[in-house]
Amino acid sequence: MEEIKNLATPKIPRMNHGIGDQSYAKNSISQSKYQSGSRPILRRAVAALCAGDLPTSIAVADLGCSSGPNALFAISEIVNVIHRRWRGDTPELMVFLNDLAENDFNSVFRGLSKFCENLREKKGGMLGLGECFIAGVPGSFYGRLFPCKSLHFVHSSSSLHWLSQVPPELKSEKGNGRIRNKGKIFISKTSPSEVIEAYYGQFKKDFNCFLKSRSKEVVNGGRMVLTFRGRRQPDPCPDESCLLWDYLGLAFQHLLHQGLIEEEELDNYNTPYYEPYVEDVRREIEKEGSFKIENLEIIALAWDGVNKEGESYERSKTTQQMAKAIQAVNESMIRAHFGDHIIDPLFKRFTQIMEADTKEVEHVSLVVSLLRN
Amino acid sequence: MEEIKNLATPKIPRMNHGIGDQSYAKNSISQSKYQSGSRPILRRAVAALCAGDLPTSIAVADLGCSSGPNALFAISEIVNVIHRRWRGDTPELMVFLNDLAENDFNSVFRGLSKFCENLREKKGGMLGLGECFIAGVPGSFYGRLFPCKSLHFVHSSSSLHWLSQVPPELKSEKGNGRIRNKGKIFISKTSPSEVIEAYYGQFKKDFNCFLKSRSKEVVNGGRMVLTFRGRRQPDPCPDESCLLWDYLGLAFQHLLHQGLIEEEELDNYNTPYYEPYVEDVRREIEKEGSFKIENLEIIALAWDGVNKEGESYERSKTTQQMAKAIQAVNESMIRAHFGDHIIDPLFKRFTQIMEADTKEVEHVSLVVSLLRN
Repeated sequence: MEEIKNLATPKIPRMNHGIGDQSYAKNSISQSKYQSGSRPILRRAVAALCAGDLPTSIAVADLGCSSGPNALFAISEIVNVIHRRWRGDTPELMVFLNDLAENDFNSVFRGLSKFCENLREKKGGMLGLGECFIAGVPGSFYGRLFPCKSLHFVHSSSSLHWLSQVPPELKSEKGNGRIRNKGKIFISKTSPSEVIEAYYGQFKKDFNCFLKSRSKEVVNGGRMVLTFRGRRQPDPCPDESCLLWDYLGLAFQHLLHQGLIEEEELDNYNTPYYEPYVEDVRREIEKEGSFKIENLEIIALAWDGVNKEGESYERSKTTQQMAKAIQAVNESMIRAHFGDHIIDPLFKRFTQIMEADTKEVEHVSLVVSLLRN
Repeated sequence: MEEIKNLATPKIPRMNHGIGDQSYAKNSISQSKYQSGSRPILRRAVAALCAGDLPTSIAVADLGCSSGPNALFAISEIVNVIHRRWRGDTPELMVFLNDLAENDFNSVFRGLSKFCENLREKKGGMLGLGECFIAGVPGSFYGRLFPCKSLHFVHSSSSLHWLSQVPPELKSEKGNGRIRNKGKIFISKTSPSEVIEAYYGQFKKDFNCFLKSRSKEVVNGGRMVLTFRGRRQPDPCPDESCLLWDYLGLAFQHLLHQGLIEEEELDNYNTPYYEPYVEDVRREIEKEGSFKIENLEIIALAWDGVNKEGESYERSKTTQQMAKAIQAVNESMIRAHFGDHIIDPLFKRFTQIMEADTKEVEHVSLVVSLLRN
């Protein structure tokens, strides 16, 4: 565990703050749909927790809570199930909302009193407010965040596909030996196999680190439900995983030709993101050994899953939504690397490229429900 | 405990955000001096905690942590003493930083990685980072914030003199019965005795609520060190407590004469603040009964205690500093009640009034060290 750092703030994205047109709060519909999709598994896991022996006070953590409407979704579900399934007096609940220190915790915290009021109203006063305590925990979940054996339930949604860092082999360094992912910003069909290997290696390291950290923190009999983007096929570069990143890469190349960015700058930029193959996830969990897989499922959202429920399908509307969703999670990293001036032309071009194409892919996530041995 | 509300956000001040000229971060020197003044008592209490029987993981809370350089001061002290005095392996520490939801937690969280680095450097790697976990807890400490028996040590500095609300008897309401504190914004020598009684009553209610909440949360043998503004004399309106508020009241009256505010508006504004008499504090603690007073001391700062250490004394410089310090903690409330337009003229006039006078008073705080029975 020596290498695990607490409160480190790796260069991974922070979701766009606020509630404006480009904010994560306004552009996280697909993340919300994954949460809905994983709800039955989440409910089953919490119900199973309630069936075991538990103390009078239980601690729940949501890792990578972000801000916006999704931040309290899972917690709300978990609290509801506990309240319904608990035998005897409702326990005191300590809820930890975790994300990187750069997350907009201020806005999450300001939404809490409304959240608690809603909880109270729903329960008709049965769930006293005094019984649900909430804290924010800043720091990377690729490291320890909580004391030993202090958590009973861990949830994480749409977060674990973000790596702790760009694989070091791909990072900008003077000198030799660095692998170049020429003109691309993520794994693509034209990436050299070393690039794919480097990403896979980083995933394995990070995921192992996540599991090891949680294995210390979660009590025996405690549970985790994790939802994150992944692959249902061994091919490391299926369109499902790469299409949007390829489009974005093309938009970057357009900016390069226009002289808005330098070639070196683009070659030095890669996204700390990975969609693992479902069987690799299974293998890593079994290898680490602290958690038993109770359930491992695949959720596929349709191409237009970024749209609001009930909206009629138009490619141009969908691609505009898609561009905003991608911008909301990538903008802070892109801005930090290339500067402010490229944001507008980049995402404009990105939208045009998507609109001009006819390809459609499903968006795939994995849901895994785990029991601490 | 039914009346105790968690996560309520009463209309009490939030310190000015950011690091600008008017920020709390830049204008909290006196608060920092009180922290230094109470340090010996804090250290003794933590050392006493370490002398008792304790588990391998201990939980510490700082209530009313605010933001800026003071936010982590106490925690740093506490961690240092624990590390020095602990017998056997250093325990895992869970640190909770509490303040109202309106506090600038984002800036506190962003300062944490530097804080942890400093800790690590100081300890030459002896205190592994993995051993100090930090969370932010939004909500009013005049209510429950943590599960039962979950805290070993509680600290609070320069916070408990803020009441949960303006005494209801003084609040703006159409109709009869409301007590008017004519032209004043706090207790003053010309306030009717009902005003003084109402403030005293609110203090007793709030302080009792604070103690009751903490009595649930702190383990037996756990400790608290509380530092807050108070009186060393029974007189409810000594200059020590009221002079600055009287100056600010005069500045408001000036604005009234200039037509910048309405009389009704001013009469409806009172500050949710109280400086209790030291013996009243003692009596309330004894009456509540859950905590034993180990130590109760008075700290008096000189009139120019708002200045940085070593600065030569000039009334005009001191009063300017004083005005900024008062502005940093009162601005958000004043702005909410009167609007943005009065801030500049108000604090300009406030400074002039202070400069034109020659009175000097000491600033008095109480420090109380408590043991959970």
